[in-house]
Formats: sequence, structure tokens, C-alpha cells
Amino acid sequence: MPDKGVTATLIERSPFFTAAGAAAMAELLRPSFTQLLPRGTTLFDQGEEPDFLHMLLEGSIGLQARVEGSGRTMVELFGPGEVFLAPAVVLRMPYLASAVALTEIRVLMVPAECFREGVARSHDLCRATTQLLARHWRLMVDQVVDLKLRPAEARVARFVARRVSEESAAGSVALPEPRGAIAARLGMTPETLSRALAGLEQKGKLRRGAEGAEVMDRAALTG
Amino acid sequence: MPDKGVTATLIERSPFFTAAGAAAMAELLRPSFTQLLPRGTTLFDQGEEPDFLHMLLEGSIGLQARVEGSGRTMVELFGPGEVFLAPAVVLRMPYLASAVALTEIRVLMVPAECFREGVARSHDLCRATTQLLARHWRLMVDQVVDLKLRPAEARVARFVARRVSEESAAGSVALPEPRGAIAARLGMTPETLSRALAGLEQKGKLRRGAEGAEVMDRAALTG
Repeated sequence: MPDKGVTATLIERSPFFTAAGAAAMAELLRPSFTQLLPRGTTLFDQGEEPDFLHMLLEGSIGLQARVEGSGRTMVELFGPGEVFLAPAVVLRMPYLASAVALTEIRVLMVPAECFREGVARSHDLCRATTQLLARHWRLMVDQVVDLKLRPAEARVARFVARRVSEESAAGSVALPEPRGAIAARLGMTPETLSRALAGLEQKGKLRRGAEGAEVMDRAALTG
Repeated sequence: MPDKGVTATLIERSPFFTAAGAAAMAELLRPSFTQLLPRGTTLFDQGEEPDFLHMLLEGSIGLQARVEGSGRTMVELFGPGEVFLAPAVVLRMPYLASAVALTEIRVLMVPAECFREGVARSHDLCRATTQLLARHWRLMVDQVVDLKLRPAEARVARFVARRVSEESAAGSVALPEPRGAIAARLGMTPETLSRALAGLEQKGKLRRGAEGAEVMDRAALTG
């Protein structure tokens, strides 16, 4: 199957795989499988107990939380290479959010029990998990600071800037998710998101396009 | 020293100690020491690289973040038994927030390098760290959902309700932190916090006092 090779490459490139090492990962991958799922698929639902740990290989997923009487929002968006939601799996606790495919996705499904056994048996896998969780904590702290202190336009600028590839200071940024999902992730309405993007374009900090945006200078975007 | 016994009891009661086990903890405690510090002390500063992992034994600390040109806020408040900030220590990365003593505090100082060596050597300590980080991730997710979806009064009600002791459905809730710190943690101004507390009192959900609040029925408070 030509697919196998592609999937293996995607998995091996993930930060989690790199941290855990090939030996620990081989054991974890044996009972795992991948799925190709259409946009709009709900991978798991808020309140459920985890059956799987997921690693996104392609596409974008949104962690969507709902509060009775107050609607729903996006807690975080994850892209290729990200493992989610290890905290619920580690603690055997119900998910605090649902996972919704915001594009077509390819996802690796690791049985939850195999992951917990792996962490219990393999110190390497356990250490990779601490690094994953530490990184994800910092994402959330960054978002809390963003929500509490930064105005809408600055939040949008930082979100776009993070999507400029690490190696380059400029370039095309893909925004394949529905605008409503990005707006909810940023704690604003879709109208505020549109106004912020227009404002950044007027200041010459980006050019809006059909698929996303063009960034001329990442440092200037957030500066 | 009579102090030793008190400190040992406080440490042994922490969720992190329970998860790691006495053997792993003994090794971690050998190079560690405790400090009694006055309210207002800055334990570490945003942007610094960690020299210690901290475990709060008594009092309350606030993780304070600042953004140039946008002021500062409280990311989270931690009480007795909490270990912070393991993510920066694990990743050897600069702190995203400062830690400020919001009351007089007693704190256990674990040299950062000893903690990292401990996690590398002891699988038990590593597993306890994954549980700690998983729990802390869920605190942040809860806060993000709170900030994005819940009105101020509901946020205040949930904050107070979480301080009612686990075993009881009612009781006195201590709020020893400055009101400004609690308001910032909840993403509101001190005036909004006061109005929300007054609103909850008017609805018969709590009684305000000099030291905190009296909760008659925890379920009714957040219901």
C-alpha cells in the first residue's frame, strides 16, 4: 500500500515521535490504525471517556466546548503532528471538549489502554508525554494571556504569524478552517475577525487571499 | 526543629507526592529546602529560566503575566499542595509568567536540575509529572471555556464553589488574595467582581464576609 509509506513519514516527523524514539513508538503503533475522515466529523464528544489517543497526520481539528445555556466555542485548533487529548487519556477522565474535523483529516488512532500501558511500561514514552503536556500547557497559558490582555487585532496578528513556517520570515499562510472556528479560537466574533484582518491589510502587514493570507514580514506583523 | 514535622506532613499530603510515592519523593527532597516568604514576594520572573521547581505548602500564589503596552494579568492562582511551574522546568524554557506571593507563603524549593534528573531516572516521578501536567492542562482549558462563554457572575460563582471543601456541600470559603488578583484571574475588573459577588448575595447564593464568603449550597451556587 503506497499509503503506508506516507503515513509512516508523517508519524515519524511528529515532535511526539521524535521525543519518544523509534523503539517506544513501534510498540505503540502496533495496535494503532489511521483513518481518513471528511470535514465535519466529530472524532470524540465532550463528556465521553477516551477510547483512543489521537495523533493528527493531515488537516486541522478543533477542540469544541459547549456550556449549557451559553453556546459553544473553540478551545484550541491543532494541526499535523499534534497528539490530543493525552490529559483525558492519562487521567481516565471525560473529555472537556469535542474534537471536530475542520478540514478533511488523516488521523492516527492509538487505543487509550495501549497508550496508558505504554506510559506505564516505557520510561521513554512517559518522558515524551511530559514534554507533550508541558508544551500544550504553554499553548493554553499563551491563549489565556492573549484573551485577557491583547486587543482583537493583536490576537489575529499573532495567530497568523505563528503559521508562517519556522524557517522563513515571510510567506503564504493557509487558513483552511471555517472563519467561525478561527474567530471562536481567538475569542471574537467572525465580524471582528474580518475587521481585524482588513485592518492588518490596510496597515500593509498582510494581504488577504482566498486560501489564507500573504505575510510580507513576520516580525512586522506582530510588532 | 518542630517545623520539619509540619513541612513533611504538608508535602506528604500533596497530590504530586501521593502520585510519585515516598521512595521517589525522598530522593527529590534531599537537595530541596523550604522558605517562608512574605506577601508580595516575587518567586520568579517572567522570561527567566527556572532554577527551581516549586511546591506551595501554605498560602496562595498568583501567576502574573505582562504584555508590553497592554499591562498585566493573573493567569492562574495556586493553593497549598500545588507544584509549579513544571512545564518550564521540563522544557528548560523561560517562564511565561511571574509567580507572586498573594499571601504569606511556605514553599518547597526543588532544584530544577535535580527535578529533571529525577524525572529521567525515576519512572514513578515521571508518571507523577504526567498526571500533574494533565491536571494543569485541564485547569487552563476550563479557564479558556470560562472566559469565552460564561458571563462574569457565573465565573465568580464557579470560582467560589471550587473553594468549598470537597467533602462538604456548604461552608466558609476563604478568599485571602487581593481582590484585584482574583478579578484578574477571572478576566474582569475589580468593580465587576464586586458587582458579581453582590448579585450572588442578593440571590441568596452566598453571604459576603471580611475573610471571604459563606456558601449555603454549593450546587445551588453554580446551578
